[in-house]
Amino acid sequence: MLQERMNWRYATKKMDPSKKVPQDKLDRILEAVRLAPTSSGLQPFEVIVVKNPELRAKLQEAAFGQTQVTDSTAVLVFAAWDNYTEDRIDSVLKLTESVRGMKSDTLSGYYDRLKGMYLPRDARTNFEHAARQAYIGLGLAVTAAAFEEVDATPMEGFDPEKFDELLGLAKRGLKTVAILPVGYRAAEGDWLKGAKKVRRPMDEFVTVVE
Amino acid sequence: MLQERMNWRYATKKMDPSKKVPQDKLDRILEAVRLAPTSSGLQPFEVIVVKNPELRAKLQEAAFGQTQVTDSTAVLVFAAWDNYTEDRIDSVLKLTESVRGMKSDTLSGYYDRLKGMYLPRDARTNFEHAARQAYIGLGLAVTAAAFEEVDATPMEGFDPEKFDELLGLAKRGLKTVAILPVGYRAAEGDWLKGAKKVRRPMDEFVTVVE
Repeated sequence: MLQERMNWRYATKKMDPSKKVPQDKLDRILEAVRLAPTSSGLQPFEVIVVKNPELRAKLQEAAFGQTQVTDSTAVLVFAAWDNYTEDRIDSVLKLTESVRGMKSDTLSGYYDRLKGMYLPRDARTNFEHAARQAYIGLGLAVTAAAFEEVDATPMEGFDPEKFDELLGLAKRGLKTVAILPVGYRAAEGDWLKGAKKVRRPMDEFVTVVE
Repeated sequence: MLQERMNWRYATKKMDPSKKVPQDKLDRILEAVRLAPTSSGLQPFEVIVVKNPELRAKLQEAAFGQTQVTDSTAVLVFAAWDNYTEDRIDSVLKLTESVRGMKSDTLSGYYDRLKGMYLPRDARTNFEHAARQAYIGLGLAVTAAAFEEVDATPMEGFDPEKFDELLGLAKRGLKTVAILPVGYRAAEGDWLKGAKKVRRPMDEFVTVVE
């Protein structure tokens, strides 16, 4: 069950670099992210999977030395579109026409309305909107990792500009918003392992209007 | 499998108001949201579950007449904290101390550093940060609904100020960021039902740095 998997997972603080996540597990985690719903299906983000040890050592420096960046099997970098553009929205329209084998004024009219709404907005508002969608994907990645019995640590504690620079993201119109090292918990040295999960009780988190 | 469930789901366009989601399914969907990871475990959002028909009729008006708002069994409203405050961060510290049965300078120091980072920031930056966390919860709700074979439609197409007003959220320091009607697809009238899911191919969505 999903809830059982969510209770199993935790933000792993210390990973064992000798244990490697098999590629098929990594593939299924990425597939879950790819299938995540996003606003108007735009998928306004990409995932960079960093396995390279030298690059990860540099990323670790830009992440305040956090060891999961180098002790994991891979670091998933969630990078949101820095803005919506006509080209980006057109490419989603073209993909939709191609996958569904149909062209229609209804369909292109829908994307025209999106352009009318997004293109006049300032870049920051659009980037924040894209970042939110990336976080849906982040949630799916954490969930999928839990189903694969793979440990994962969602992280915001890093210098995003430095990450963008090290990964060459600016020229691709992307900005790092969150990272997720995936790997396996170490036998020793993880202060959070086994700690009780802390969540607000349901009656403080949810209000029902009958 | 998670990926199979994600392929099953779609943003349901027409729901059958005569079919009701059982309470135990709704409870498990909300539990998945409650268990969702958030930055520093702050859970900076709440969920309002609207079942009341009169209120839903008003919300529907504020959602451009979209029928899922009234034809679903309930509308989950994801409302993010409008800002981080000392009280809010202290309440998470207190909860953590109480659940884990420990008090320590390490723990309170961690939350002091969070306050040092968040409290001087402008409200918009903090709200956007909270909104991203709410989207992790939205992703979990969509996923949990799929596991329950419950249809759900993630929506941003509504007037957030009007929602906040109708739900009395401003005085609670909350702002609506997304809504998720949950219910069951109608037999007829859903143009998206059975349509092929459109997602960018893996090699356009993911970059691997070996």
